[in-house]
Amino acid sequence: MERIYAEYFIETPFPLEKAAATLAGEQSSGTFVPVPGETEELKARFAARVELIEALEVVSTPSIPSEKLAPGKYQQARVRVSWSIENFGYNLPTLISTLQGNLYELTQFTGLKLMDLEVPDSYATHFRGPKFGVEGCRRLTGVEGRPLIGTIIKPSIGMAPADTAEIVKALVEAGIDFIKDDELMSSSANSPFAERVSAIMAVINECAERTGKKVMYAFNVSDELDAMLRNYETVVKAGGTCAMVSLNSVGLAGAKKICDQGALAIHGHRNGWGMMNRHPLLGIEFPAYQKLWRLAGVDQIHVNGIDNKFWESDDSVVRSMEACGKPLLGGYSVLPVVSSGQWGGQAFETYRRVPTVDLLYMAGGGIMGHPGGPSDGVRALQQAWNGAVSGLSLEETADAYPEFGASVEKFGKK
Amino acid sequence: MERIYAEYFIETPFPLEKAAATLAGEQSSGTFVPVPGETEELKARFAARVELIEALEVVSTPSIPSEKLAPGKYQQARVRVSWSIENFGYNLPTLISTLQGNLYELTQFTGLKLMDLEVPDSYATHFRGPKFGVEGCRRLTGVEGRPLIGTIIKPSIGMAPADTAEIVKALVEAGIDFIKDDELMSSSANSPFAERVSAIMAVINECAERTGKKVMYAFNVSDELDAMLRNYETVVKAGGTCAMVSLNSVGLAGAKKICDQGALAIHGHRNGWGMMNRHPLLGIEFPAYQKLWRLAGVDQIHVNGIDNKFWESDDSVVRSMEACGKPLLGGYSVLPVVSSGQWGGQAFETYRRVPTVDLLYMAGGGIMGHPGGPSDGVRALQQAWNGAVSGLSLEETADAYPEFGASVEKFGKK
Repeated sequence: MERIYAEYFIETPFPLEKAAATLAGEQSSGTFVPVPGETEELKARFAARVELIEALEVVSTPSIPSEKLAPGKYQQARVRVSWSIENFGYNLPTLISTLQGNLYELTQFTGLKLMDLEVPDSYATHFRGPKFGVEGCRRLTGVEGRPLIGTIIKPSIGMAPADTAEIVKALVEAGIDFIKDDELMSSSANSPFAERVSAIMAVINECAERTGKKVMYAFNVSDELDAMLRNYETVVKAGGTCAMVSLNSVGLAGAKKICDQGALAIHGHRNGWGMMNRHPLLGIEFPAYQKLWRLAGVDQIHVNGIDNKFWESDDSVVRSMEACGKPLLGGYSVLPVVSSGQWGGQAFETYRRVPTVDLLYMAGGGIMGHPGGPSDGVRALQQAWNGAVSGLSLEETADAYPEFGASVEKFGKK
Repeated sequence: MERIYAEYFIETPFPLEKAAATLAGEQSSGTFVPVPGETEELKARFAARVELIEALEVVSTPSIPSEKLAPGKYQQARVRVSWSIENFGYNLPTLISTLQGNLYELTQFTGLKLMDLEVPDSYATHFRGPKFGVEGCRRLTGVEGRPLIGTIIKPSIGMAPADTAEIVKALVEAGIDFIKDDELMSSSANSPFAERVSAIMAVINECAERTGKKVMYAFNVSDELDAMLRNYETVVKAGGTCAMVSLNSVGLAGAKKICDQGALAIHGHRNGWGMMNRHPLLGIEFPAYQKLWRLAGVDQIHVNGIDNKFWESDDSVVRSMEACGKPLLGGYSVLPVVSSGQWGGQAFETYRRVPTVDLLYMAGGGIMGHPGGPSDGVRALQQAWNGAVSGLSLEETADAYPEFGASVEKFGKK
């Protein structure tokens, strides 16, 4: 029978074997006293199994503070656990309850993070996964051989559809590939969703008819389910190619229902992610997280960026980008969205660390705040990636291209 | 114009005013350079507003470790921020992205927790909230003047519907009010959802016809959206009164869609909650969390229990129970579900700390593992609450009631 494997980074004041057994027990039997009806045969078929325990460091202070615990010996370890697919079948929410559920609350752990997971081959028969992925997003935007260049409309909140459309027009004319709503902007008092879609798609469609290039705009459809489906339909009818979903705020069941529609590429925004990941010993790591969303059908997913404005280290960002590049069940291609404080200068280190152009490279202020205007901002980003891929340094690229040179002047001096 | 207020517990290495301004800026404008189009008028209407800053302790080590930060001065504070309802209207997922979103990732904070929130009166016109709440759950179970007594079917995984139905039969005959699936159990290889519903409801309906008392069984409908709606319909058609949803695993849009159906009381299971709450300076506190789910329409929500088997302190559990007891928008009544390691002995401290009987008191092993069997287990719990409400001590209650006395013998000696 197929099994699902999960790897955890744990910390415990208890003997390792006992702590791991508690983890497995809580997530398949789950009570504090033996109960009638729990036969050995049932256990063999349905009990979670501890597959591996690898002791790591011992620390003296629990990583997550607790009123119930004093300083002592806290053993960190890597633990691998498996469950039979018979326990939950093809049910992602129940899979999540199994892999994450009550575990974080166990006194046996002073730290617990889900690092990675492995789903069995038969998952490919149930989960279609991303309808578009890297190839589909390239096809929809007509971009080959280089990263998609994108931007975010700012200010997030406040502009009327006509104002937004005017900025979109400038960006479209500047040759941008992708534009997105901010995650704070769905339908606001002075930018109702349908009006915004209509104003923006008029600009994008006009340009597409004229030049053959249709810019992908990720409209933030995030809302309650019926409203999301209405928003989605509005985008489809207006000729749009992409919908953005705030994955954590909408949740898995709602997001998957949107992915299942299959007419638009789904831009997966991970806002709220810091709550699940910022602590080194609490939550879930991105390699595990992105697999769940690829199974759900997300085509693009945020990975932060090198030298970002957030707390995350470059190493962590690189691991996230690499995770997106690894096939899942032989495919389930997903486009990593690199963003946060990006202006082109980071293209060099990004390409050095993860030598691929299969990504969506997003800059907000880096484009809109370019001294030569958005048009020069887009050009500067393309130049930065040209330079990086050709093996030029940042300085050489700045010398070769005036628009990127101006970016370096404005954003590169810290 | 109406505003939404949020209170945060923060920690920052930056001057407090600056950190609070970053929080407000990120969640309404959101970029690292001033951009064209962001007028003063737009800011006044749509910008988040810092309403209050109260400095608390200074610590020398950041509460959330970071490679980017050294020991220094980290100021903790209470911060209150508000947004105009014009920014997002009646859209819970976008409200969540606004209140929680990217905040956790800001380098400006070495700790950030959403403590509470306040929604404006007009939310009552859009959100029906819990269809049943405390009164509705009492009506459905016929229990007045005392807590609903409930249990969980264990082992979580492995029993066939006929085995489960047999346990249900014993519990129903013992006079239990409420039974639930485990969160790990939705549809498993040897307990397909529809078969389990059919076997269990046959027992419950038969008893209801005979005695007039219909036990509430919370079937775990958690799954992808279409499957959840099918599961829900299966429960309705079989004469069931309750569906359980793993709130965090299903997510807000999916869970609200299920609540919106309105035919069944919704049992909100918060598994995964530890990830969002276990660290004192990361995530969300229960007073804020439960408001979001009450707006979505959840009728019953887990609050852990006094002297529980998890990490959570009694004080925190008490705060959660009290939060459920406070009206939201003048109503939106929700039944707190007290569970985890409960066996009746905790009834006394629970009632002393939160003097109400408006709760669902759950014991798993505490009922099924009672030396006299489930029937004595149920009786012991009712006796414990009788004793607690009458002002008897645990010892007095144990003397007065032999079944509770046996519980004390088995579970009360640590």
